[in-house]
Amino acid sequence: MSVTTPIKSVSEQLITALGAQAVRTGDQITADWGHDELGTVAHRPDIVVTPKTTTEVAKVAKLASAAKMPLTTRGSGTGLVGGCVPTEGGILLDMSAMNHIIGLDEANLTVNVQAGVQLKTLADYAQDKGYLYAPDPGEKTATIGGNIATNAGGMRAVKYGVTRESVRALTVVTIEGQVLHLGGQVVKNSSGFDLKDLYIGSEGTLGIVTEAVLKVSPLPKVSTGLLIPFDDFKAALITVPKILQSGILPTAVEFFEADTVKYWEAFKKQAFPQSGAAAYLLMTLDGQQDAVVEQNYETLAELCLDNGATDAYVLDTPELKANVWKARDSFLEAIQASTTTMDEADAVVPCDQTAAFVSFTHDLAKQENVRIPGFGHVGDGNLHLYVCQDDYADDVWQKKLMTVFTALYNKSIELGGKVSGEHGIGYAKRQYLQATSDAAEIDTMQRVKQALDPNNLLNPDKIV
Amino acid sequence: MSVTTPIKSVSEQLITALGAQAVRTGDQITADWGHDELGTVAHRPDIVVTPKTTTEVAKVAKLASAAKMPLTTRGSGTGLVGGCVPTEGGILLDMSAMNHIIGLDEANLTVNVQAGVQLKTLADYAQDKGYLYAPDPGEKTATIGGNIATNAGGMRAVKYGVTRESVRALTVVTIEGQVLHLGGQVVKNSSGFDLKDLYIGSEGTLGIVTEAVLKVSPLPKVSTGLLIPFDDFKAALITVPKILQSGILPTAVEFFEADTVKYWEAFKKQAFPQSGAAAYLLMTLDGQQDAVVEQNYETLAELCLDNGATDAYVLDTPELKANVWKARDSFLEAIQASTTTMDEADAVVPCDQTAAFVSFTHDLAKQENVRIPGFGHVGDGNLHLYVCQDDYADDVWQKKLMTVFTALYNKSIELGGKVSGEHGIGYAKRQYLQATSDAAEIDTMQRVKQALDPNNLLNPDKIV
Repeated sequence: MSVTTPIKSVSEQLITALGAQAVRTGDQITADWGHDELGTVAHRPDIVVTPKTTTEVAKVAKLASAAKMPLTTRGSGTGLVGGCVPTEGGILLDMSAMNHIIGLDEANLTVNVQAGVQLKTLADYAQDKGYLYAPDPGEKTATIGGNIATNAGGMRAVKYGVTRESVRALTVVTIEGQVLHLGGQVVKNSSGFDLKDLYIGSEGTLGIVTEAVLKVSPLPKVSTGLLIPFDDFKAALITVPKILQSGILPTAVEFFEADTVKYWEAFKKQAFPQSGAAAYLLMTLDGQQDAVVEQNYETLAELCLDNGATDAYVLDTPELKANVWKARDSFLEAIQASTTTMDEADAVVPCDQTAAFVSFTHDLAKQENVRIPGFGHVGDGNLHLYVCQDDYADDVWQKKLMTVFTALYNKSIELGGKVSGEHGIGYAKRQYLQATSDAAEIDTMQRVKQALDPNNLLNPDKIV
Repeated sequence: MSVTTPIKSVSEQLITALGAQAVRTGDQITADWGHDELGTVAHRPDIVVTPKTTTEVAKVAKLASAAKMPLTTRGSGTGLVGGCVPTEGGILLDMSAMNHIIGLDEANLTVNVQAGVQLKTLADYAQDKGYLYAPDPGEKTATIGGNIATNAGGMRAVKYGVTRESVRALTVVTIEGQVLHLGGQVVKNSSGFDLKDLYIGSEGTLGIVTEAVLKVSPLPKVSTGLLIPFDDFKAALITVPKILQSGILPTAVEFFEADTVKYWEAFKKQAFPQSGAAAYLLMTLDGQQDAVVEQNYETLAELCLDNGATDAYVLDTPELKANVWKARDSFLEAIQASTTTMDEADAVVPCDQTAAFVSFTHDLAKQENVRIPGFGHVGDGNLHLYVCQDDYADDVWQKKLMTVFTALYNKSIELGGKVSGEHGIGYAKRQYLQATSDAAEIDTMQRVKQALDPNNLLNPDKIV
C-alpha cells in the first residue's frame, strides 16, 4: 500500500471539509492513537479525523479514496486483536464524537444511536427508560460501533444472543463515500442480500458503520444471580449442557477457576465472595415474575448440586449480585495486572467440549511452562485465555506465544470450534484464521473484500 | 445468457457423473418443473438433475460452470415469487433426494440435515425426540433449503426469530464447485466475514446450500392459544405493540379479518370457531410451567379486552388449538380457491404501522375495485396480501396488478417497511425491490453477486 497523495494535501482537504478542530496531524497524534487495549500491535496513523455526522464520514471516505490512503475506524480502542490499529498509517477515523443517542422508539422497541455511543451510556439510557439493551460485553466503555465491528457477545448472549441479534438497521459508509441504509425498523426482512449481517463483524474492512437501530426489550422485573462452587473444573463444565437442556434458559452462564479468583483478590486487595473453590459457575436468571425466577434458580441449583457442585449461593441482594458481577467484569484487568505482557485467545468450541478444551489448556500451560489463566462465557462455549509473558525475554516469549496459540487454536478447531467467539480477528489473529480455515472460505472472503473495497483501503491487513 | 455447450453434451456428462436415474431431459421434464406454487412465473428447464450428496452437487456446479449453463436450485417448489423457476433454462437442481436427517446432537441442541428435508419431517423428528425446531412457516412441505434460501419466518418468529436465527452452520457449494463449511456447532462466531448470513436469504443466487446445522430447543411443556375477536381491525392491530411491550413474549401473534374467515369457511365447508368478528388476533403462548403460561395468557387477554377486544377465547384443549391453527395454515389455499389467479405482496412494516398499512389496502381495494384479502404475522409487522384476478381479463389484470403492487410497496416503504418480510424477491418482486431501494444498496448487492458468481449462472434473473 503506497500513500500516493502527500499527507499534507489530504489533511488540508480534511480541514476544509470538516474544520480544523476535527483534524490532528504530526505531534498532535500521541502514541495512544496507535494501539488498542492489549497493545500487542502498534502503528501510529498519519492523520486522525474526528467526524460528527454520517455526511462527514462520507466526505472522509471520498477523500481517502481519491488519495488511495488507508482509512481505519476506531471506537474507544478497547479491542484485543489490533483491529483499530492503522498498521499501514493513513487516516484514523476517530468515532468518539459521534456519540449521540438519536432516539428511542418505544412502540417498536428500538433505539437509534450514532456508532460512537459507548455501551455503558446506551445501557444506562435504556434502563432509565425501562428497557434492556441486551448485549453485555465486559468492556462497558467500548463503543456500539466497536461492538458491531466485532459482533461482540458478552454475558447475556445465552438468553438474548450476541450483538448481531440486536441490530435491526445500520447506516454504513462505503469506501467510495456512498451511504447505505440497511435493514430497518422492521423485525423481519427478506428483501435481497443480507448486507447488514455481512457488515456486522467485518471489523471496518468492508465499510464504516456510522449509525445503528438496535433492539431493546422491556426490562425484566426480576434478576437473580447464582454462584455455584465446584471442587473440579470438569464437573462445572460438564454441567453446563445439562443446564441448557433443562428448558430453563439462564441469561448468563460464566465460568472461572481458583487462579483467576486469586489474581483478582491480589489486584483488588479484597476477598472474593465464597472464595476457596476450584472452579465456579456464575449464572443470572431474569424474568417478569418473582415466583418464576425463584422456581427456576431453585431447579438449576439442584441440578448443579446433583452434578458435583459443593454448594449453591443465591445472590439475592442487589449488592451481593452487583459485587460478584463487578468482580467478574474486572477479571481481565486483574490478570493483566498479574503479568508484564499478555495476549489473548478468544476461542469458541461447542458447549459440550469446554471441559476437554480447558483440560487441554491446563496441560499446555504445564508443558510450555507459561501461565494461561482465563475465564469463559461457557453457556456459549466461549473461553478467554490469557497467555502471560511473566519473566520471559521478549524473543523467547514471541516464539512461545506462537507455539501456545497454534496449539490452542488447533485444539479448538479439532473440537469443532473457531478462532474467535466475540473479539474478532483483527491483525493479531489473522495468521490463525488463515491456518485453520479452508482455502475456499478464505478465497470467498477475499472476493467479498475485493468487491466492496477494491483498492484495499479500509482497515488494511485485517481479517483477510 | 447464452448456452454455449449443447444441452445434449452436458446431460451426458451429468449422466456419467451422477448416473442416468439422476438426470431428466426432454419429455421427461413436465411443466411442473417450470413453476412454483403461485405459478405467475413459468419457464421449463433444459435438464433436471437430482443429486443425493454435496459431492454430487459440486460435480453439477463444475459442469454448469464449464458449460456456462444457468443452474437453478429447487426445493419443493412451494415459493411464491418464482425464485426456483429457471427463467433462462439450463439445469434445474432438484434437491428432493437430499432428504436425510443426518443426526441430532442433544448436548449442543442442534440437528444436522440435508437441504432437501421437508420442514414437516424435521419438525416431527425434533418433536419426537423432545425438541422444538422453532421456525414454523405455514407451508410445511417446503424444504429446509428453501426456508434458508428465503430466510423464511413463520408463526413462531415473535419469540424464536426467523430461520436465520436457527442456522448454526451451512454447507454451501459455489458455482465453481468448491465446498464451503460455514459456521459450526458453535453458538458464537467472530472469525472473519459472516458468509453464512450472506448465503441465508440469497435465494440460490450466490451458492447452493446442501446441508445445515440447525438449532433446536427443549420442547416447551405447555402451549396454549388465545383467539381474540375485535369489532374493528384497527383496534386489533393497535393492540399488538402493547402486547410486545408488556414483558410477556408470545410465541406467535397472527391477524386476520372477517373476509378471510369467510373464504376459509366456503373452502372448508365448515364454520370457523367463534365466527362473526370483524378481525382477530390469534396468539400462542408457550413455556415450561402451566401456572406461568396461564398467568401470562390471562394478563394478555385482559390487555386485549382493555383495548377493544370483544371477547377472549382460551384454546385450552389440544383439539381446539389444533383446529384453529389448522384453519390459519390453510388461509392461503382458501383465498386461492376463491379466485382465478392471484399474486401476493409479502410486505413488512414496523409493528406500530400495521393499522395504517391495512387501512391503506382497504382503501386501495375499493379504489382499484379488486379484492385484496390477506392475513398477517403482525407480531412481526409482516402482512400477506393476495391481489385477486377474479373476472378481470388477463391484460387488464396485469396492468391492475402492477398498479396495486406499486401502491402497496410504496406505502410499505413510506411507513418504514420493506418489500419482503419472508417470501423473498425471486423473479416476481425484483422490479419492486429495485424501485424502492437506494441505488447504492442495489449496487452493493450487484458487486457481491459479481464477486461470487461472475458469470451470472446461479439462478439468473433473481433478486438483482
